[in-house]
Amino acid sequence: MAYKDERHFEIENRGAVLIVRVDGGPHALFGPEIANELEEVVDRVDHDSSVHAVVIAGAHPTRFISHADVRWLQEGGAATPSVGERGASAIVRAAEIADRARVLDPVVTRTPLQGAVQLDRLHATFLRMNGSGVIFVAALNGSALGLGAEFAWACDLRVMADGDFFIGHPEVLLGINPGGGGTQRLTRLIGTHRSLVAILEGKPFTPAEALANGAVDELVPQEKVVARAVELAEYFGSRPKGAIAAIKRSVYFGGSMSLSEGLHVERTEFLIADQSKEAQDLMIEYLATTDATGELPLYNPDTYARALQLGRVPGRRSTDRTQRS
Amino acid sequence: MAYKDERHFEIENRGAVLIVRVDGGPHALFGPEIANELEEVVDRVDHDSSVHAVVIAGAHPTRFISHADVRWLQEGGAATPSVGERGASAIVRAAEIADRARVLDPVVTRTPLQGAVQLDRLHATFLRMNGSGVIFVAALNGSALGLGAEFAWACDLRVMADGDFFIGHPEVLLGINPGGGGTQRLTRLIGTHRSLVAILEGKPFTPAEALANGAVDELVPQEKVVARAVELAEYFGSRPKGAIAAIKRSVYFGGSMSLSEGLHVERTEFLIADQSKEAQDLMIEYLATTDATGELPLYNPDTYARALQLGRVPGRRSTDRTQRS
Amino acid sequence: MAYKDERHFEIENRGAVLIVRVDGGPHALFGPEIANELEEVVDRVDHDSSVHAVVIAGAHPTRFISHADVRWLQEGGAATPSVGERGASAIVRAAEIADRARVLDPVVTRTPLQGAVQLDRLHATFLRMNGSGVIFVAALNGSALGLGAEFAWACDLRVMADGDFFIGHPEVLLGINPGGGGTQRLTRLIGTHRSLVAILEGKPFTPAEALANGAVDELVPQEKVVARAVELAEYFGSRPKGAIAAIKRSVYFGGSMSLSEGLHVERTEFLIADQSKEAQDLMIEYLATTDATGELPLYNPDTYARALQLGRVPGRRSTDRTQRS
Repeated sequence: MAYKDERHFEIENRGAVLIVRVDGGPHALFGPEIANELEEVVDRVDHDSSVHAVVIAGAHPTRFISHADVRWLQEGGAATPSVGERGASAIVRAAEIADRARVLDPVVTRTPLQGAVQLDRLHATFLRMNGSGVIFVAALNGSALGLGAEFAWACDLRVMADGDFFIGHPEVLLGINPGGGGTQRLTRLIGTHRSLVAILEGKPFTPAEALANGAVDELVPQEKVVARAVELAEYFGSRPKGAIAAIKRSVYFGGSMSLSEGLHVERTEFLIADQSKEAQDLMIEYLATTDATGELPLYNPDTYARALQLGRVPGRRSTDRTQRS
Repeated sequence: MAYKDERHFEIENRGAVLIVRVDGGPHALFGPEIANELEEVVDRVDHDSSVHAVVIAGAHPTRFISHADVRWLQEGGAATPSVGERGASAIVRAAEIADRARVLDPVVTRTPLQGAVQLDRLHATFLRMNGSGVIFVAALNGSALGLGAEFAWACDLRVMADGDFFIGHPEVLLGINPGGGGTQRLTRLIGTHRSLVAILEGKPFTPAEALANGAVDELVPQEKVVARAVELAEYFGSRPKGAIAAIKRSVYFGGSMSLSEGLHVERTEFLIADQSKEAQDLMIEYLATTDATGELPLYNPDTYARALQLGRVPGRRSTDRTQRS
Repeated sequence: MAYKDERHFEIENRGAVLIVRVDGGPHALFGPEIANELEEVVDRVDHDSSVHAVVIAGAHPTRFISHADVRWLQEGGAATPSVGERGASAIVRAAEIADRARVLDPVVTRTPLQGAVQLDRLHATFLRMNGSGVIFVAALNGSALGLGAEFAWACDLRVMADGDFFIGHPEVLLGINPGGGGTQRLTRLIGTHRSLVAILEGKPFTPAEALANGAVDELVPQEKVVARAVELAEYFGSRPKGAIAAIKRSVYFGGSMSLSEGLHVERTEFLIADQSKEAQDLMIEYLATTDATGELPLYNPDTYARALQLGRVPGRRSTDRTQRS
């Protein structure tokens, strides 16, 4: 597989894991071109059965992504006709339709809708990451504010550099709210109130604070961030891709709905995963091993430990009779 | 009250508390017959005003429920016609209608819909537990994986045996997602991200981990699990059944909706509970005690302590004038 | 600005911060008149651009608000015609319409709908606090049960007196569920399970417990509660009011919806905030400072520290070239 090098993304192919280094220029900014390149990468890996995980790191020596290109945000706001809440909601809906119809470039460019459509497409890309069978790991090898933090919240796992770095939301100090999903994903990540207070204050988390409140999963020395992210990518990426997609959709999407709607999403995903060849083969093998050994493989501690490493329950040849509880 | 002994459920009647010991055979599996017996028990206790709480324990020496009968899951997937996401969603909706119409046994059995209908009925039973005025306590006197864990998440409280036991979700290692509510109830129990990571990894929690992240409420030595669960069942079950139902519905159902929808559920439940004879009597007595003693009963620490033990604020005869803050 | 002194509210105007002392009489009760006065205050400050924050304290020496006036609750229940769940839901909907049409006083008073309409208006007031650009800080200078706790949960921040005080929900012990938003806001504040257990038990939190589970933000000695609440009100209230409103709506309302609906709310709020004069000025100044200094102002630690104090990123004159990471 040969991905052509994009202008802002340096992509390293390590088999099942793709490492993407995002170069936002000397100020490490997230602008519309990065949004477009991200959309392309997500689209590719989602369709490429050989890719199981993507690690995203910053190319800057001390930053993951500084924040959004403020010129982009400012011009978007200046171009938008002054509207009230009802008008804004209508523009967002129009942007969603425009995006779905892919009329963006010829029609919408340089109109008041452009900013809203670009924002809508970025949201769609982040949502696509949430619904994908690919594991996304943010390798936070430096600081991340605003859209940089939102990019990290849209990943499945976050490894952060320990040291004089920070991650969070300063938007309120520029008179705006986070617009790239921060008010939604940070809220679901660390809880309504901690998210509210952090975003209202505009003060970012230190690495230790981010670890304590669950905003990031692990802290390691800066020079080990990418290596540790790759380890996690390989470990989680070793699970069956169909099951990963079903779990991510059930938790991210179903888990944010009412309980009965969420259960509907879960049952739908289960019906799809349950009939897949991979699941059928694994279950038939599980039953055969149970018959052959007289014990459920998952109650054999050695088998379970190997299953966690392999990403699936191993078959008979590799199962012994050691039993547990 | 005489419940006939079912094949898999051994039911002990202790007045307001029912103890159910679930026998899933030598492998302690959760199969379709257990789902049916559970539905019957939930239906009975929900209509029996003398039952205030149910304790559910495993009959196996070291396991609560091992996990689902994998043959059941595997045959369900094999019987389902190969469908995409839209088709799966349609089958789930059809199953919901079939279940509501109670056409299950004659028409649906041995058709591709059977698995989906059985799963839908199990979801309905778990949801009924969530909306009931009966308190359900899981006495986790051993390990629980997959559907065993999901059964525990569907209860209101969980007491777990301390020791070499575990509880969690290995489904990903068999190529499927949890299908008995695990992605929804664990997510609402311990938070989106911890739930996501645990289910993606497929590694269960130790008792200490489950206690730390809130997946279980208490750890006690294995031989004391049932006794402690009965204590909790009696304590929580002593509250007015109508208020318990109103609270459970408001929190489980309303609490998973948008804030304004959730508030609508709460107000509706409040209107029903507020006009009940039990609430009216308790409130009239509360006002009378306030007049008689010159203090609000809940600001009399002795009265409050006794109210917690009795399950309701005691009336005048048992109230003295000791006051607090 | 001259607010006339209401019967139950003593209002002190400290410029951007309003201090409201709620006097619920000798028993410190929350009755319908307090609900009406609160509605008026929220309406006023929401429209008064000079008010940025409101501190709410109790006038009683040891209580914030004891709880609701039980006579009010009891008579509301007694007046309601006996209805099932469907009837209760219909009454709630009717009350919402009656409230919107402002037909309350002449038509609805002394009819079975009155209690439901009053409850609905109180919910609307609390929701308006959640959607406002004004910061509400509860100065819990004493205990708060039931509706007193619900009033505090409807605020954005909570400072509580350390000592022999308590906050929580005893409603179950009177046969009812919390009806002023407690099952919804406490659930979103401290998580589904901790909220469920606390409300089912009916036992309030000590100050230390409330701090540990996130139900309150800070504990200080009782005599310092109001002063500390004013400090927080000034600090958070210094942020741009439009951004505060956008953030509060996105987190409270959007954050309780499905992820995709929540993202829609966030994008809509962003579009409104992004085109505001205040945001446009701050962003243009941010870009100018970046050009002048060669560094992003938020990556200059002195500038960021001053921004947190000022409530917005300062402009060029006050920015030096000290750089960070």
